[in-house]
Amino acid sequence: MDHARSPLALPFPAIPAIDGVTLRVARARYKEWDRCDLTYAELAEGTTVAGVFTRNVCCSSEVELGREQAMLGRARALIVNAGNSNAFTGYRGREAVEQIMAQVAGHLGCAPSDVFVSSTGVIGVPLPKDKAQAGVAAALEAPPCSWEDAAQTIGTTDTFPKGALATAVVAGRTVTIAGIIKGSGMIAPDMATMLGYLFTDAAVDPGFLQRCLTRASDDTFNCITVDSDTSTSDTVLAFATGKAGNPVLAGADDPGADAFAAALHDVCRQLALLVVRDGEGAQKLIEVQVSGAQSDESARRIGLAVANSPLVKTAIAGEDANWGRVVMAVGKAGEPADRDKLSIGFGGTWAAREGLPLADYDEAPVAAHLKGREIRIEVDLGLADGQATVWTCDLTHGYIAINADYRS
Amino acid sequence: MDHARSPLALPFPAIPAIDGVTLRVARARYKEWDRCDLTYAELAEGTTVAGVFTRNVCCSSEVELGREQAMLGRARALIVNAGNSNAFTGYRGREAVEQIMAQVAGHLGCAPSDVFVSSTGVIGVPLPKDKAQAGVAAALEAPPCSWEDAAQTIGTTDTFPKGALATAVVAGRTVTIAGIIKGSGMIAPDMATMLGYLFTDAAVDPGFLQRCLTRASDDTFNCITVDSDTSTSDTVLAFATGKAGNPVLAGADDPGADAFAAALHDVCRQLALLVVRDGEGAQKLIEVQVSGAQSDESARRIGLAVANSPLVKTAIAGEDANWGRVVMAVGKAGEPADRDKLSIGFGGTWAAREGLPLADYDEAPVAAHLKGREIRIEVDLGLADGQATVWTCDLTHGYIAINADYRS
Repeated sequence: MDHARSPLALPFPAIPAIDGVTLRVARARYKEWDRCDLTYAELAEGTTVAGVFTRNVCCSSEVELGREQAMLGRARALIVNAGNSNAFTGYRGREAVEQIMAQVAGHLGCAPSDVFVSSTGVIGVPLPKDKAQAGVAAALEAPPCSWEDAAQTIGTTDTFPKGALATAVVAGRTVTIAGIIKGSGMIAPDMATMLGYLFTDAAVDPGFLQRCLTRASDDTFNCITVDSDTSTSDTVLAFATGKAGNPVLAGADDPGADAFAAALHDVCRQLALLVVRDGEGAQKLIEVQVSGAQSDESARRIGLAVANSPLVKTAIAGEDANWGRVVMAVGKAGEPADRDKLSIGFGGTWAAREGLPLADYDEAPVAAHLKGREIRIEVDLGLADGQATVWTCDLTHGYIAINADYRS
Repeated sequence: MDHARSPLALPFPAIPAIDGVTLRVARARYKEWDRCDLTYAELAEGTTVAGVFTRNVCCSSEVELGREQAMLGRARALIVNAGNSNAFTGYRGREAVEQIMAQVAGHLGCAPSDVFVSSTGVIGVPLPKDKAQAGVAAALEAPPCSWEDAAQTIGTTDTFPKGALATAVVAGRTVTIAGIIKGSGMIAPDMATMLGYLFTDAAVDPGFLQRCLTRASDDTFNCITVDSDTSTSDTVLAFATGKAGNPVLAGADDPGADAFAAALHDVCRQLALLVVRDGEGAQKLIEVQVSGAQSDESARRIGLAVANSPLVKTAIAGEDANWGRVVMAVGKAGEPADRDKLSIGFGGTWAAREGLPLADYDEAPVAAHLKGREIRIEVDLGLADGQATVWTCDLTHGYIAINADYRS
């Protein structure tokens, strides 16, 4: 299957080296392809780590192990396998992960639990140990590569490599946060997996890093949806090498903690949006802004109900200002809503206010907005102050073509 | 938009007259079309009624009023408007419904609350009172029509008329239950609405009728999904004229109560499946059988997670035995599941058992099964005795064509 580059793609940003992070890639040949498919990030001694993982209860061994490792807060290496998710493979899958952890730990002289492993691709096929071993051996010896090479290598059917960057000043020192992510492509028979990695030279206590990452994830990665299907392998890890030499950030009151948290949030948001921009078949990026809800969490649920509605997503694909479908999606969310206080708009123009279509509704600006690549749907509940923003893409023939027009 | 008859359509059954029910149809011309779009069912004095309604909080006035009326338990008439759902139209929409209730009540000499009104079609446009008045007047004087005519008239973009029939023996008398339903078609800008009506000549206390209908709905109407989008107007009403002359059924211990409840359940199940057979773009009917779950309710939620997964639905469209996507959907349901006890099958052949792909998995019978029109996905959780069956259809280019390939 060939996938054309998404019309919503962005160019890869110029990301500088992060002190304490060395990237290398190699060919493990997990599939019949001629490309690098194994990524190795070597991390300086003293690197701290935090992680957020899929809530899918049928998660992979990588996720089970990663969740335990992240609680220890230390990292020396990351290995990402592309082409085989190793999910639903029982003890054989787990053995393959443990073999990789041992191999890298032996090379670095660290504990196996300092080695994080992620895999993405076909499900139900144990990761082949021989290919993994040879691939890891090659990666350990490979020359350092660029961020873009690493971003390309973790991808599967992604149509463009995805990276993001932000800086913050912490106690007089500039720290850098770089991130790469993959997500939303398909390989038959397969499922989309979102794998994201953030690297910073800041010195950050793992507990505080975890709090920053969890909070940022809540309004970034947890506010995007392509097709409402949660992968068994979704993982986001943040690594902090400490090489910037700032006083260790350990709590929200430390100097520069706010700036660091904001920069980390910014990178998460950029990465999350890149995944939506590469959503399967996506022609339009949709931002759903919900206000006036009973609470922020209620607003998020309502936003996701709108963003996951096939009828809303197909309406946007058809450039159709179908606010009735938005009303329906709000109503089915199961959250507090009052039909007679509800307002719906597109790109800043209200179509309906307080439960009634606007008598003087001018569709011209809405029609012009819907022809664009970036669409905004506004939902105001008129109840309280809860708000949220959620992102998705439209549902097009491309989605069906990618997911149905083949047999595995 | 023209829609070809669904390849999953069934012929309309031969439904006999139900004593106490007279059907008539007329042209209200709610849209620019040359077809009957207003259905009138006149019900004998003494008819009891029960109803189940959408849980969408942005429901229409018809649903709000119908919910109150059904609690009174009495009915003399049903009016169904096709082409305008009258949803999200505020006080003007409500006035149109009350006008229809008064008009029919005046004709029959009954209370307005004995007149049930449903509407389906475009949202956000108040039902035009003048067209409604003329249409109702014409329907009151129209000659009686057939069940198939009525089923056709309540439809909007349904591709075939839908009816079902069952009988039961109650205390020595045969009673008949007939039902018609519409659902799953679209009119721009619109949303699918499911409207179902059951009619029986049995004498049934409204409280018992409500309990039978609620229970039957739970495993029939509430176990189907086309696209996970809940309409603002969904309604199922059951009317019992009492003309069969049986002793009034008032409780589960009455003679024949079991048979009646089973027959009513049977009609609900037939009607529900007909809606899925006319799901937008449907090429295959999918039955998801879940067993071994923590509870029946847990099984139903897992079944719906599988049935609503775009990745599972597109896999079936592609005739792809992609059990990995089923695993993913089970895992994201948020219900108790243990990856290492989970088994997945298609049409009676296991692909994976207890968390592992079967070593001797023979895909040939599965591939043959998936080429058919009626597909079964089996999910066994291996935890306890909870079970449920859920129905959906595949997700195809037809769905996108119906919902995205036009502008309103």
